[in-house]
Amino acid sequence: MPIPTIRWMNGTVKIIDQTKLPHKLEYITCCDVRTLWKAIRNLSVRGAPALGVAAAFGVLLGAKAFKSNDRKRFVSHVRKICEYIGTSRPTAVNLFNALDQMQGVLSLYPHESVVELKSLLKKEAFRIFEEDRRVCRRMGEFGAKLVTSNSRIMTVCNAGALATADYGTALGVLYSAKKKRKKFKVYVCETRPLLQGARLTAWELLRAKIGTTLICDNMAASLMKQGRVDAVFTGADRIARNGDAANKIGTYNLAVLAKHHNVPFYVVAPRSTFDLSIPSGRRIPIEQRPKEEVISFGGRPIAPRHVKVYNPAFDVTDHRLITAIITEEGIIRPPFPANIKKKFL
Amino acid sequence: MPIPTIRWMNGTVKIIDQTKLPHKLEYITCCDVRTLWKAIRNLSVRGAPALGVAAAFGVLLGAKAFKSNDRKRFVSHVRKICEYIGTSRPTAVNLFNALDQMQGVLSLYPHESVVELKSLLKKEAFRIFEEDRRVCRRMGEFGAKLVTSNSRIMTVCNAGALATADYGTALGVLYSAKKKRKKFKVYVCETRPLLQGARLTAWELLRAKIGTTLICDNMAASLMKQGRVDAVFTGADRIARNGDAANKIGTYNLAVLAKHHNVPFYVVAPRSTFDLSIPSGRRIPIEQRPKEEVISFGGRPIAPRHVKVYNPAFDVTDHRLITAIITEEGIIRPPFPANIKKKFL
Repeated sequence: MPIPTIRWMNGTVKIIDQTKLPHKLEYITCCDVRTLWKAIRNLSVRGAPALGVAAAFGVLLGAKAFKSNDRKRFVSHVRKICEYIGTSRPTAVNLFNALDQMQGVLSLYPHESVVELKSLLKKEAFRIFEEDRRVCRRMGEFGAKLVTSNSRIMTVCNAGALATADYGTALGVLYSAKKKRKKFKVYVCETRPLLQGARLTAWELLRAKIGTTLICDNMAASLMKQGRVDAVFTGADRIARNGDAANKIGTYNLAVLAKHHNVPFYVVAPRSTFDLSIPSGRRIPIEQRPKEEVISFGGRPIAPRHVKVYNPAFDVTDHRLITAIITEEGIIRPPFPANIKKKFL
Repeated sequence: MPIPTIRWMNGTVKIIDQTKLPHKLEYITCCDVRTLWKAIRNLSVRGAPALGVAAAFGVLLGAKAFKSNDRKRFVSHVRKICEYIGTSRPTAVNLFNALDQMQGVLSLYPHESVVELKSLLKKEAFRIFEEDRRVCRRMGEFGAKLVTSNSRIMTVCNAGALATADYGTALGVLYSAKKKRKKFKVYVCETRPLLQGARLTAWELLRAKIGTTLICDNMAASLMKQGRVDAVFTGADRIARNGDAANKIGTYNLAVLAKHHNVPFYVVAPRSTFDLSIPSGRRIPIEQRPKEEVISFGGRPIAPRHVKVYNPAFDVTDHRLITAIITEEGIIRPPFPANIKKKFL
């Protein structure tokens, strides 16, 4: 089974330092909030669900350091900790959801002592952690049914154990299928510019002894044309009410190719990824990332310094290109606008 | 106007060292065949037409070094030189074509002296050089008609001045359009794994003062979806009798995206790129390149060492995805199987 990316261990938060992968498997042991904050900021820990868990554990670290029994000062201390953790990755929605849930404990128990609150916060953090594990397993169970025997799967970015508290979303489906003794191999798109596919997904799958072939993103079409891809499985960062799905840049590219070559295109994402407040993908804001990610590599320039760069972090896949969305509450099929409503509203 | 990538200068071959681009504009002055051989081998000079010219000039260097008047020994010397140059890039068709043309001189003039043969070889080398220039200009003229005003063009790899003896194939069209004062900007796909787009095309276009935006290959679909691409122009390495076109890996990817988004997809290639002996793209052999190109960058590993890699140098674009092929003999439109026959057979 895949390696846990984040754990609470003897009063510390132990995380895999993903910036060192795939070269070295190193851990960072966070004994205080500041160390954890830096680990989030530097992308040592990443992936929407994993960030939620990291934030919750961060609150625990902060609460533990509080040494008095003054309840009022404790509550104010915890709120400051939450605010501080929120500055580490200001656009990560899961991180803020987790911080909200942790702060909810403070409001929910207005009379409990500091000792009791500390215990309740710990319970809440572990609930968030366990909930992510449960959700991953459920998606894995549902999704594994879609993995046909002897198939060739394509994936992009890292929607695996390194992005969650358990075995991942898109990759969770593959781990679950493997457990059911299904045979398959995986093509991993390297995922420029930050190469999460090459660095993280290839590493994760090889550790799990899954047959893995790495490709550059522009090679996907060539494989599909030869009939060498049977299905695409990806994660998602946000899904609109009509099923349009934002995910790592390059995902929409794959969806168009899959459609052209009649390859099923599956999105694996928990209920928490759906943003039912927005009617379509057109309303999902797309973050532009720094040009340095594209024009240099490991500090070494690979393009003229003064060239303009277009570097969106995400793209949006039209729901008409999606074959099914796998959630912990079951598989949703087209027509998505009607079926998402039926499932979640 | 773009910078000449290869020149015959005072009895030497002066070439831009493309391995140093975009960081430094450095030249290699080849006074002997061995230096030129190394420059071809190390990809200091690359691009099908440029390689043909380099090979022809290489024969001149070898001929010049021959100091006796013995015709028989001279002919054998030149043939050995040709054989030697052929070992530098054994799969480059243009290189062998040029060597054949140079050796053709030896057979065509069976009675001429060494001095006369040297002069005839020089004439032939310059004919090859001038022919490439003429062909580029003609393609540029025809292609410029397809560049609409205020358009946004996308291109991949390097089909420019750095790949030919003149201003290129796909980029030649853009230089020609600029000369006619058409306004446009260019999105350059970086072209993994070897980044010819980022390193060479971006550098070339910026030098020519053309508005240039660099993207990772997986970002093309995102731009097209937003209606921000009006046409794609690419080169080709080999075109079958039915119009199927092999080109740098990722070209077919762009062609599928262009079709999906109703963006015209143009291939710019001289008559010499057509291989009328093969009926369709299925018969074009695709070279697999070393996995090191994908798993490491500048000597630094970016993926697990033991991962499998799929790394084809080319892909084949189905002729049904091509809007038009621009040659020095005019623009060919669908149906390609019939119209290529009409034009060239």
